[in-house]
Amino acid sequence: MELEFLGTGAGVPARQRNVTSIALKLLDERNEVWLFDVGEATQHQILKTTLKPRKVKKIFLTHLHGDHLFGLPGFLSSRSFQGGDEPLTIYGPKGTEEYVRTSLKISESHLTYALHFVTLPEEGVVLDDGTFHVECAKLDHRIASYGFRIVEKDHPGELQVEKLHAAGIPAGPVYAKIKNGEVVTLADGRQIDGKDYIGHAQKGRIVTIIGDTRQCPPIERLAMNADVLVHEGTFGKQEQKIAHQYFHSTNINAAKVAKAAHVKRLLLTHISARYLGQAVRELQNDARNIFKNTKVVSDLDIYDIPFHGRKD
Amino acid sequence: MELEFLGTGAGVPARQRNVTSIALKLLDERNEVWLFDVGEATQHQILKTTLKPRKVKKIFLTHLHGDHLFGLPGFLSSRSFQGGDEPLTIYGPKGTEEYVRTSLKISESHLTYALHFVTLPEEGVVLDDGTFHVECAKLDHRIASYGFRIVEKDHPGELQVEKLHAAGIPAGPVYAKIKNGEVVTLADGRQIDGKDYIGHAQKGRIVTIIGDTRQCPPIERLAMNADVLVHEGTFGKQEQKIAHQYFHSTNINAAKVAKAAHVKRLLLTHISARYLGQAVRELQNDARNIFKNTKVVSDLDIYDIPFHGRKD
Repeated sequence: MELEFLGTGAGVPARQRNVTSIALKLLDERNEVWLFDVGEATQHQILKTTLKPRKVKKIFLTHLHGDHLFGLPGFLSSRSFQGGDEPLTIYGPKGTEEYVRTSLKISESHLTYALHFVTLPEEGVVLDDGTFHVECAKLDHRIASYGFRIVEKDHPGELQVEKLHAAGIPAGPVYAKIKNGEVVTLADGRQIDGKDYIGHAQKGRIVTIIGDTRQCPPIERLAMNADVLVHEGTFGKQEQKIAHQYFHSTNINAAKVAKAAHVKRLLLTHISARYLGQAVRELQNDARNIFKNTKVVSDLDIYDIPFHGRKD
Repeated sequence: MELEFLGTGAGVPARQRNVTSIALKLLDERNEVWLFDVGEATQHQILKTTLKPRKVKKIFLTHLHGDHLFGLPGFLSSRSFQGGDEPLTIYGPKGTEEYVRTSLKISESHLTYALHFVTLPEEGVVLDDGTFHVECAKLDHRIASYGFRIVEKDHPGELQVEKLHAAGIPAGPVYAKIKNGEVVTLADGRQIDGKDYIGHAQKGRIVTIIGDTRQCPPIERLAMNADVLVHEGTFGKQEQKIAHQYFHSTNINAAKVAKAAHVKRLLLTHISARYLGQAVRELQNDARNIFKNTKVVSDLDIYDIPFHGRKD
């Protein structure tokens, strides 16, 4: 489970940062990738990575401002051109389907795969399957903007194959019983307890991705105890007034909610092009004074999300 | 008058070539820039040039396939964000306005300037003002695709100021009469003929830009005697069948029409990503065997279009 930042800028593309897109790489977990927002030239950024468009099975849109949206028709067309044939689901605010259908119709783009749309509710669960649970909530932006809480289901303990080999228990149908935690009698007469050969269950990881927003109560709820909180930090601490005026957050706002929600790590993105070099380090340092484990991300940064603990 | 190629690839962006956009720079002539097609990330390409989005006053779309279109909403929004306030006119096939209006509506992009739309006729004049005349004609592609012939009006002869100085004729109101070609009597009694102090009129230049197409009669008409013909050469000579099947042209098709239309220079663009390095040089050499003054263009190439002759 990794986060790869395809674009970390705000408003318009700049030399240093493209407009927003974030890939949640679930290759080990589901052999697929989810995108959060698709700013213009997201497919160009993907060309610089190892990501395969056909592996993108779900796209979540936080909101429909152009810097989060205008790369979507091009990405969808190229995924088709490159032989993607598995269905793709887009979760977005009202208006998403009209925009995509119009773009594909006018350009006469005929996709090789089925496209499904899920319109985001004001608040609630948008996905719950065997491995993941995703909920969204509406935030406070100039237009409808959402945050997402992605919760991995707990991992059952894995069979400790090396320990079994060390104990001289050869592979065979008996492994299935051991994995179930049963007490089994081996061919050589030994009786063993499966529980002794199963690792600890792992708690599922939680990733929270917040769209453009002023501070509002849903953010803390979505972020509670998350392993990673991805939050916009369009402006720095001197620009609180401007941030409010434009329905955005500062690095300080984000650090405060990271602390209040007891997250493990804060990744600040959607950085205004006015901040370069030393100014970016200051954004980071000012946030770290409130919440230590903060990083201002850059385009093409990759962050691993490790398991953080046993489920006892 | 210059052509700057912002994207020279076909279908999907690749590391070597972005999708199509061409800037016709009319800085000396009108202090403005015209864009022909706006593939995704055209605004990103512009960041690598000296072009100013606010100077783009007209956009012409050859057709509405995504690789020529999907950069348009982002470009329009950024032109606004960067303070562009002068009107912009978009000349495109039917569907252009619906696509642009829907994209701006859904993304709630409010432009700081007026946007006008001109729907292209099957064939005819779309612009004729004091300095330029532009006509279009429909070509032969899978969807409606157009070529444009841009004709600069002839330049009147310029006043030869240095020659006047050399003859000891000081600047003053008399210069206006001389420029009109009148016979005037100077203060010192000399009589001079204005026509002796006016340079030759220059013939206006002709630029022809052809959209994606199979070969068809309008191409030669649009290209006749052009200073520059910009023509797609998606495929090479071995791929004539594929080119036809996909409603495209080969380098050979383009060279033949350049020769038949007596153009001065052929610029081949919209090159399939399958051609790299030596294969691109072969595309160029094969075309040169038919029409010598051929160049396969690359992203960010700039071509000056010099005056080619006196108007007598």
